[in-house]
Amino acid sequence: MLKLPGLIDPHVHLREPGATHKEDYDSGTSAALAGGITMVLAMPNTKPPIFDQVTLDLVLASAKKKAHCDYAQFIGAGPENAEMAARLAPYAAGLKMYLDSTFGELRLDDMSLWMPHFEKFPRDLPIVLHSESRSMAAGILFAALYDRPVHIAHISLKEEVLLIRAAKERGIKVTCEVCPHHLFLSKDDIPGISHGHPGRGEVRPRLAEKEDVEALWSNLDVIDCFATDHAPHTLEEKDSNTPPPGFPGVETILPLLLTAVHEERLTIDQIIEKMHTNPKRIFNLPEQPETWVEVDETASYQVKTSQMYSRCGWTPFEGWQVCGQVKRVVLRGQVAFENGKLLVEPGYGKNIREEQNIE
Amino acid sequence: MLKLPGLIDPHVHLREPGATHKEDYDSGTSAALAGGITMVLAMPNTKPPIFDQVTLDLVLASAKKKAHCDYAQFIGAGPENAEMAARLAPYAAGLKMYLDSTFGELRLDDMSLWMPHFEKFPRDLPIVLHSESRSMAAGILFAALYDRPVHIAHISLKEEVLLIRAAKERGIKVTCEVCPHHLFLSKDDIPGISHGHPGRGEVRPRLAEKEDVEALWSNLDVIDCFATDHAPHTLEEKDSNTPPPGFPGVETILPLLLTAVHEERLTIDQIIEKMHTNPKRIFNLPEQPETWVEVDETASYQVKTSQMYSRCGWTPFEGWQVCGQVKRVVLRGQVAFENGKLLVEPGYGKNIREEQNIE
Repeated sequence: MLKLPGLIDPHVHLREPGATHKEDYDSGTSAALAGGITMVLAMPNTKPPIFDQVTLDLVLASAKKKAHCDYAQFIGAGPENAEMAARLAPYAAGLKMYLDSTFGELRLDDMSLWMPHFEKFPRDLPIVLHSESRSMAAGILFAALYDRPVHIAHISLKEEVLLIRAAKERGIKVTCEVCPHHLFLSKDDIPGISHGHPGRGEVRPRLAEKEDVEALWSNLDVIDCFATDHAPHTLEEKDSNTPPPGFPGVETILPLLLTAVHEERLTIDQIIEKMHTNPKRIFNLPEQPETWVEVDETASYQVKTSQMYSRCGWTPFEGWQVCGQVKRVVLRGQVAFENGKLLVEPGYGKNIREEQNIE
Repeated sequence: MLKLPGLIDPHVHLREPGATHKEDYDSGTSAALAGGITMVLAMPNTKPPIFDQVTLDLVLASAKKKAHCDYAQFIGAGPENAEMAARLAPYAAGLKMYLDSTFGELRLDDMSLWMPHFEKFPRDLPIVLHSESRSMAAGILFAALYDRPVHIAHISLKEEVLLIRAAKERGIKVTCEVCPHHLFLSKDDIPGISHGHPGRGEVRPRLAEKEDVEALWSNLDVIDCFATDHAPHTLEEKDSNTPPPGFPGVETILPLLLTAVHEERLTIDQIIEKMHTNPKRIFNLPEQPETWVEVDETASYQVKTSQMYSRCGWTPFEGWQVCGQVKRVVLRGQVAFENGKLLVEPGYGKNIREEQNIE
């Protein structure tokens, strides 16, 4: 039996408010605990998006009632909320900027709209960028120009990891995360995931070439965090004519990574570094006292949606044979998950920023 | 009568080899002289593109026979010619990288393909980037990472000029140029240019919003050079179903800028700085002894294609009333152009890099 510290997932979509048929703070944080994750940072591209006091209050009220594990909530950057976002920073996980996708209030097409956010958002919290390829390079340039940290979400390409390496070597304050699906799947796996429903292979950033996947593995030292980008959609939605992009991930990340350890492609120390030590430092997160995860690293089993807590009802890793199972999760002194059973009530999870502000 | 130094246009397409029905070193350099330009730097996206020893020799042989004004020829960056380009650097105007458009041998989709060029190309010559918006930001990041100069071609957007200002303030070695058509035309002018042929309004970067045009004017101090991006296509081509993007420019740039001086939007010193002093420094160009341009700054006349030397047979500025006419151009002690007449033979123009290498 292996004992890990409480794992942190700095990138989850809990679909609340606005799409709680896919997931909510209750189901999403239950799934997190089942996956060995004791703290999640939730993304703001909800309906409505979280971009001001009213929407932040709205989501935090739900979270307070429903969360099983600890959490913080990102605020989204929009064309006109730089002052507001900076003011709300102490109550948020950080600032999320969508530089490629565009959504109503979080639309940031023009680089001049990035400037007020980089000027105003507090320097002790990172700005997290959804930024692919050249937009990522543009984001790193902003980190250099404003001399402040940025964290690049879900990198997937060889050019991205190589450029981040070069930027780190020059002292630019950039960190990054990679998702399990970009480490364990490539474009070539889409038919196998799809079972005739191509929507199941849709994710952003897209699954990449094998060469990209290999570049991520061979540059693991550049990668600060493993994050799921847990993005649940129901199977019905994924199999529709307009499939939304995104994979669930919190219940599969640790078994997949432990399997890689078993295959000697990764070490336990790397998992601890990239799922505990680094996210804690990068996002300025508090210690969770008396918190740990017990794992049977020899247990071999098949990934099955039927045993999952996520509301979305599917996984791209269905049927994968993995080695390493979460047996017990202790969160702040209480057994929160054991042998497949969730043992803490909704509302047990704490908003770690609220706790930090009280201190 | 106003006396200006020989003007330098660091961005012309002379269409040689491969499209000499549009322009060649003969007609293009004649047009340049008629426009008060005594030195041109020619772009490499020809057919074939100029990307190795054979293609460079090919174009320079034509140029030697045909050029009326002085010149140098850019070499293009491709996915596999970084070593070769660096070796040919002393014989070239500089290295041109196309980061947005993609053309056969000059295709550079992946940022990891930029790296060998930034590593190898000599630091005393700039790398010139066709790079719009985020690609431009990515290019500036490369300048920062490799600590070497880049020159951004034809900026057109507010976000671009603001970002270049910020990068310069942080000491990044970036310079830039703007084209007359992005200073004097916006999207709103397309119908007026088109005369029912929308292809006539096509240019890359596209004509921008009025707000962008205003931002260029109000940030002139950030703009190092005025360059034409002289990109001649015949009127027949422009009016076809597949109109190629591009405007001619060498015969209109100076009258347009002098008109702006007349309107007190610009000063003569700014013209000299951005069309002589700065390009000379940025591109490491030699002095042209006994070279000057005489201009009647009070002469008011209409722009007419029929009086032009360019082979393309049209201009987007047809019929514009301008104030300021090139009367006489003296190039290395010889009157090269006077009262509408070209007075030097093909072959009079020198490859300035060849001269520099002999020294």
